[in-house]
Amino acid sequence: MTTSPLRADAARNRQRLVAAAGVVLATRGLDAPLDDIAREAGVGNATLYRHFPSRCALIAAVFADRLREVVASMETFLNDDDPWRGFSSHLIHLCELQARDRALADLLTTRVSGAPELEELRRQVLAGLVELIRRAQVAGVLRKDFKHHDVVLILMANAGLLERTADHAPDAWRRQLDFILDGLRQVDGRAGRGAPLADVLEAMQAMAQRYGCGD
Amino acid sequence: MTTSPLRADAARNRQRLVAAAGVVLATRGLDAPLDDIAREAGVGNATLYRHFPSRCALIAAVFADRLREVVASMETFLNDDDPWRGFSSHLIHLCELQARDRALADLLTTRVSGAPELEELRRQVLAGLVELIRRAQVAGVLRKDFKHHDVVLILMANAGLLERTADHAPDAWRRQLDFILDGLRQVDGRAGRGAPLADVLEAMQAMAQRYGCGD
Repeated sequence: MTTSPLRADAARNRQRLVAAAGVVLATRGLDAPLDDIAREAGVGNATLYRHFPSRCALIAAVFADRLREVVASMETFLNDDDPWRGFSSHLIHLCELQARDRALADLLTTRVSGAPELEELRRQVLAGLVELIRRAQVAGVLRKDFKHHDVVLILMANAGLLERTADHAPDAWRRQLDFILDGLRQVDGRAGRGAPLADVLEAMQAMAQRYGCGD
Repeated sequence: MTTSPLRADAARNRQRLVAAAGVVLATRGLDAPLDDIAREAGVGNATLYRHFPSRCALIAAVFADRLREVVASMETFLNDDDPWRGFSSHLIHLCELQARDRALADLLTTRVSGAPELEELRRQVLAGLVELIRRAQVAGVLRKDFKHHDVVLILMANAGLLERTADHAPDAWRRQLDFILDGLRQVDGRAGRGAPLADVLEAMQAMAQRYGCGD
């Protein structure tokens, strides 16, 4: 099957729009004007709406792009001989992505729904994370009461810290994360308190509603 | 000197307005409509504006009330025989105040300016905090690289976490804080990274600008 010039053109425009959206959303946040994205991509508004009938569809496409990078980098961390370094590098990597990308900071803790591709990527990230945690706990270096949804809480707190410090204390997140990582090291007799998975999932769904991308 | 009935009435109205503002700002945030506060206090808008010509003046009055409570509770923590318990109880107390009061969550990390009473209360809180940290570090229970402005970062992250979880995972902040506290315990060879005091102060001033209460 050959691709018609028209179809190739459409694919190129779509690609341009996702790239432009990535830049504009990262710097101006998830509620950046769609007009600015069309302009950045060098296409008309009508073209944008033809490819992405809603802001959510565009957000989902950008987010899928970023999650593919997370999945790829996870391979490296899973192959690390040192289970603590593998686990902590992944966490540092996620927080660093948040620091570099304002839109991603909140998207990482948002359950954007209605995008099957995103669901599959999320599943892969979660599976990798569960394995990183399992390895570090089996090796006795990560506290036993740490759960995968604690990562969501860490990322939510980090997003809030970045929002308040990004312009004036850009290294603050790294310092704070060092304190947290030191607190996650296995030491006998530690036991954390509640915040069940179901509650955290609800908080993630509420984030999606905030952007009008919920169920 | 006797107080005229008119003056007593004015003082009562002022008190009512501060109390009402405390409730309304705590539940609806710092940008809650001033009309709602006047209604809650049972006074007219003109009375509100006579007492508090700007939103900032009202915020400063409410905030001073809360800071007086912080100063009072600090006495207990400073008198604790166990320096770790004294320090950590103060931190838990601050985070708990944030969890209970949406407005305070961000105010605690905002340099509201132009209110000399606030400045004096802030000075007292800072002096108490510095002493709590000093005692815990001298006793060898708090990591040596912990600085008083790290408390600001912890409170900023906590505010962000609360914003995202308060409605659905109300215990999340406590769990996260346990991880941080475990990371703050003194263990040999720990060294945190940058985020100098000057940067953190700038971030606090930026918070004030966000609410139109900066210099």
